[in-house]
Amino acid sequence: MTDPIGRYEFEIDAYLTDFRGRATLPMIGGFMLQSATKHAEERGFGYSSMTSVQRVWVLSRMAIEIFEYPKNDTIMVIKTWVASVNRLFTERYFAFENADGKVIGYAKSLWASIDLSTRKPTNVLDLGGLSAYITEKENPIEGMSKIPALKDNFEKAADFVIKYSDVDINKHLNSMKYIEHFVDVFDIDMFREKEIRRIEINYVSEGHYGTKIDVLKREERDGVFVLEMKDGDTNVCATRITWE
Amino acid sequence: MTDPIGRYEFEIDAYLTDFRGRATLPMIGGFMLQSATKHAEERGFGYSSMTSVQRVWVLSRMAIEIFEYPKNDTIMVIKTWVASVNRLFTERYFAFENADGKVIGYAKSLWASIDLSTRKPTNVLDLGGLSAYITEKENPIEGMSKIPALKDNFEKAADFVIKYSDVDINKHLNSMKYIEHFVDVFDIDMFREKEIRRIEINYVSEGHYGTKIDVLKREERDGVFVLEMKDGDTNVCATRITWE
Repeated sequence: MTDPIGRYEFEIDAYLTDFRGRATLPMIGGFMLQSATKHAEERGFGYSSMTSVQRVWVLSRMAIEIFEYPKNDTIMVIKTWVASVNRLFTERYFAFENADGKVIGYAKSLWASIDLSTRKPTNVLDLGGLSAYITEKENPIEGMSKIPALKDNFEKAADFVIKYSDVDINKHLNSMKYIEHFVDVFDIDMFREKEIRRIEINYVSEGHYGTKIDVLKREERDGVFVLEMKDGDTNVCATRITWE
Repeated sequence: MTDPIGRYEFEIDAYLTDFRGRATLPMIGGFMLQSATKHAEERGFGYSSMTSVQRVWVLSRMAIEIFEYPKNDTIMVIKTWVASVNRLFTERYFAFENADGKVIGYAKSLWASIDLSTRKPTNVLDLGGLSAYITEKENPIEGMSKIPALKDNFEKAADFVIKYSDVDINKHLNSMKYIEHFVDVFDIDMFREKEIRRIEINYVSEGHYGTKIDVLKREERDGVFVLEMKDGDTNVCATRITWE
């Protein structure tokens, strides 16, 4: 059996970092997706195996904590493993390390398996091979909670229309593009003084090409923001971002 | 001496492709930047060597032709080399191959070396090691022409404000984000029926954080578009895109 823990290396290319020469959260999110895809593919439950049984993985929730953002021209190591499986969901966990093996962050993610045509959830336990890979490994960050809908004291922070570069192979807003649109709500000065220590995301409904999305924002408490993407009255996605 | 031609492999990850399961032009552009960065770094004229002498590479022009966009879950190979060097510029060329070694495209790029504080061009010939790497290798695509400014018969196609995720380590709009904003001007239906066969870009002035950019568009002839990014009256960037 293939090692249940996948280990992948990513180079933090200078020309792709932010203005501080640090990896960005959308970039790290992209690396996480690549690691998840490879890990699943190598173990028989990746994109091609899934589509061969008319299914596709859909990200439902995610929490990422970064203690130290990787600098340009360094290597970031991502370890990922299957943490749990039940009928509706599987949890995939991540640990981030720098080139010296120092842990610089963790993440948790929750995935559903939907039918390609009905877009309805399918039984994750059907995927025979998956449960065999469940692994216990340290991941001390808080879990992925349900972010309550914004009711009052919010402001509209931005809006955008979902374009060609935003949509993925499922024809919906790419999971990592959500992060990009969320972090872009903050002024660049915030990134000079602070870091996003934790981001938690609830993917609620699918963002379709051409849709106009409003981004609502509320500061829950000092440095902690809840943001919501709305397509009219429909909640598409919510996030809680903690600056430190 | 290190091989003058660098060869780099990139995986076309399913969850990062477009709705057709194909690599996108901004993605290929990102791979080109990564290849250029690695190639230069390995040969002593990369980001860190440049900043140690108070300089930084700035992309001035680029032309990319793709005959066949790589599909998801395949490998794309990028070969890159120094094609010429003079006082003001160096040309870097690229060849793209699929996993079977079939050529699927080419690109040409033109770089200036600017002083980190004055932002003025420096003499590229000062970079002693660079000229030793000049290589002759087939690259049959048309060169990088100057795209004339739009004077009439154009329409405003879009506008956007340069945000945190758009800016690079130089604090200016990331060279590949230009491509993303340009291709997003087209309706997704164009991508169902046609492909962008060639894109040519002139980087004219630097796009700063917070600036509102207007994107102007003119169809020169059937399937050939000239687009311009303007910051007020200032031309920031122009492109010619050929659909086939």
